[in-house]
Amino acid sequence: DPQFDPNEHSHRRYNPLTSEWVLLAPHRAKRPWLGQVEAAEPSASPSHDRNCFLCAGNTRANGEVNPDYRATFVFQNDFSALVPDTPEASDSDPLFRFSTERGESRVICFSADHSKTLPELSIAEIEQVVNTWRVQSEELAERYVWVQIFENKGATMGCSNPHPHGQVWAQSQLPSLVVKKQQNLLDYTAQYGSNLLADYADKELERQERVVIYNDDWLVVVPYWAAWPFETLLLPRFNIKRMTELSETEQVSLAEILKQLTTCYDNLFQCSFPYSMGWQGAPFDGFEHTEWRLHAHFYPPLLRSSSVKKFMVGYELLAETQRDITPEQAAKRLRDARGVHYTLSYR
Amino acid sequence: DPQFDPNEHSHRRYNPLTSEWVLLAPHRAKRPWLGQVEAAEPSASPSHDRNCFLCAGNTRANGEVNPDYRATFVFQNDFSALVPDTPEASDSDPLFRFSTERGESRVICFSADHSKTLPELSIAEIEQVVNTWRVQSEELAERYVWVQIFENKGATMGCSNPHPHGQVWAQSQLPSLVVKKQQNLLDYTAQYGSNLLADYADKELERQERVVIYNDDWLVVVPYWAAWPFETLLLPRFNIKRMTELSETEQVSLAEILKQLTTCYDNLFQCSFPYSMGWQGAPFDGFEHTEWRLHAHFYPPLLRSSSVKKFMVGYELLAETQRDITPEQAAKRLRDARGVHYTLSYR
Ligand SMILES: O=P(O)(O)O[C@H]1O[C@H](CO)[C@@H](O)[C@H](O)[C@H]1O
Ligand SMILES: O=P(O)(O)O[C@H]1O[C@H](CO)[C@@H](O)[C@H](O)[C@H]1O
Repeated sequence: DPQFDPNEHSHRRYNPLTSEWVLLAPHRAKRPWLGQVEAAEPSASPSHDRNCFLCAGNTRANGEVNPDYRATFVFQNDFSALVPDTPEASDSDPLFRFSTERGESRVICFSADHSKTLPELSIAEIEQVVNTWRVQSEELAERYVWVQIFENKGATMGCSNPHPHGQVWAQSQLPSLVVKKQQNLLDYTAQYGSNLLADYADKELERQERVVIYNDDWLVVVPYWAAWPFETLLLPRFNIKRMTELSETEQVSLAEILKQLTTCYDNLFQCSFPYSMGWQGAPFDGFEHTEWRLHAHFYPPLLRSSSVKKFMVGYELLAETQRDITPEQAAKRLRDARGVHYTLSYR
Repeated sequence: DPQFDPNEHSHRRYNPLTSEWVLLAPHRAKRPWLGQVEAAEPSASPSHDRNCFLCAGNTRANGEVNPDYRATFVFQNDFSALVPDTPEASDSDPLFRFSTERGESRVICFSADHSKTLPELSIAEIEQVVNTWRVQSEELAERYVWVQIFENKGATMGCSNPHPHGQVWAQSQLPSLVVKKQQNLLDYTAQYGSNLLADYADKELERQERVVIYNDDWLVVVPYWAAWPFETLLLPRFNIKRMTELSETEQVSLAEILKQLTTCYDNLFQCSFPYSMGWQGAPFDGFEHTEWRLHAHFYPPLLRSSSVKKFMVGYELLAETQRDITPEQAAKRLRDARGVHYTLSYR
């Protein structure tokens, strides 16, 4: 009988945060691609765009005028998915169950410079972004149990404006995927008496094969159970449960690793790498939640090049996530892409 | 206090098949779209394409020559995600858990005519497709517990060839989403003593507001908890647990409703409507599984037009699925698109 080779043989890996499996078919990476290619992202935009509704001094769809901001700027989303004054209603019929939801959706501009993306900002400028995330979390945590900070980057990820920005959605109930994650974190702590994400960070640092980058405070790995080809998990190396607990030095070291990671992404296929990223930590419900640890997920869609993405379709939507390249291969390629941003290096 | 209006106010609906919620923000449908538009699908392809690896008589990537088939044609996928002879291996470390998987991946050509899609085939031709699904299920059920029949249609859904075709992946373990669905079906039967999908079909027929089409044997609804804008659920109106139990008359009535449904889709935005669809029923594990009922999901990505899709990105990947138009609005629009295929009507 032949020996099992993770780079050759189909196998399933278990995601302990979702309690779902991922099907890995590494030999599939060899198949030729004849399908859809993504359009190139528009390059070289100006530092200020008169038609951009996020640029300083411009008028938005609802008639409001943006201030003449320099670093970050936060405003209520003009088309908020969540609003504070939704009337209360619900039904518990098992087949037609619903409940209204209250919340707020805000847009966070990362910089006044329309032409820049995260890896092109300075560490000090990225620290401003991190600080804004913390301040927003603090403020919204007073009224809501869940504060979801995220960024959709690139047209492939449904982002309609290249101006560097993210979002924060706060709400009064825990979203489904968070409930599931919390249950898995709790189960692990109950069974092993320790913290799942803390244990995981330690073990990945020991094994090294899925580590992309790290510094004294933070670690980036392609998780063992990654779904997207170049998915990463950003973990703290210290005990922190929520964004609101970040110290000033931890904000700086976070800015540093964010700049490094997003540079790895851009360098990999020499393009402005699309992704969705977001932060998760313990809910703001008054409990301590020792089972949680603050962390960020990066979910980038690209698979083979700047124009060929992974499609999460038929089998994935119905049965199970399926991936072609191994997380170890992905981590190595991201590691090899470290360094100066490709737009700044002479080739 | 204002009254709750499902067409106006944000609310969450519960999906009893996944035990997850969907966030509905119906007022968001009004936001302008400035983001990515999908390329138009190539129209008017020939009935036989010399360069198509699915057309009769052509040579595939691995050198095999397709037979001169007329109706349907099935072959092993040249880049199978699952193969029968994977060596066995596994590890139960809670953070690095894996297990190898055996199976088979096949391609099912729906017609020898390269230029046709499901709604453009005759009822008799579609019945051949249904019959092929049944025969494939029967054969693969002898060796595998799970047989996943699906179709990825359109470049937007990662499909690289317009030749009408689907796939069947069979495997020796139950995929994650199936395990979850089975648990939810079982829990419902345990609690209410009846079958979830049977009860649901009855109630939707009574309420009518989410019904798209139905005949004596089958029913299509936009489910109460739909995630994709025009997602539908195809349910039997009789007791059937697996594809392998289909009678000849049930195959014909299924072919009829499949033609009607895919015509509604194409007519809605007057384009060849992309989607992923697939069948699920009781596993082939030797148990009876009264909790199951055979059904199909259609997951189409389009939202506003033939070129603007719904992006399942940041909030959706991290927190919870979010949708803009209500399932009731979607059902009405699909209902209104019934009739003759748009390419055959003179306008
Ligand atoms: O099997 P195909 O058509 O090569 O590939 C397509 O369907 C598969 C199964 O849903 C997906 O994993 C791929 O991402 C998609 O491109
Ligand atoms: O909020 P935006 O940027 O208008 O919209 C984008 O992000 C949302 C949150 O992930 C998604 O629901 C939308 O599908 C996507 O287009």
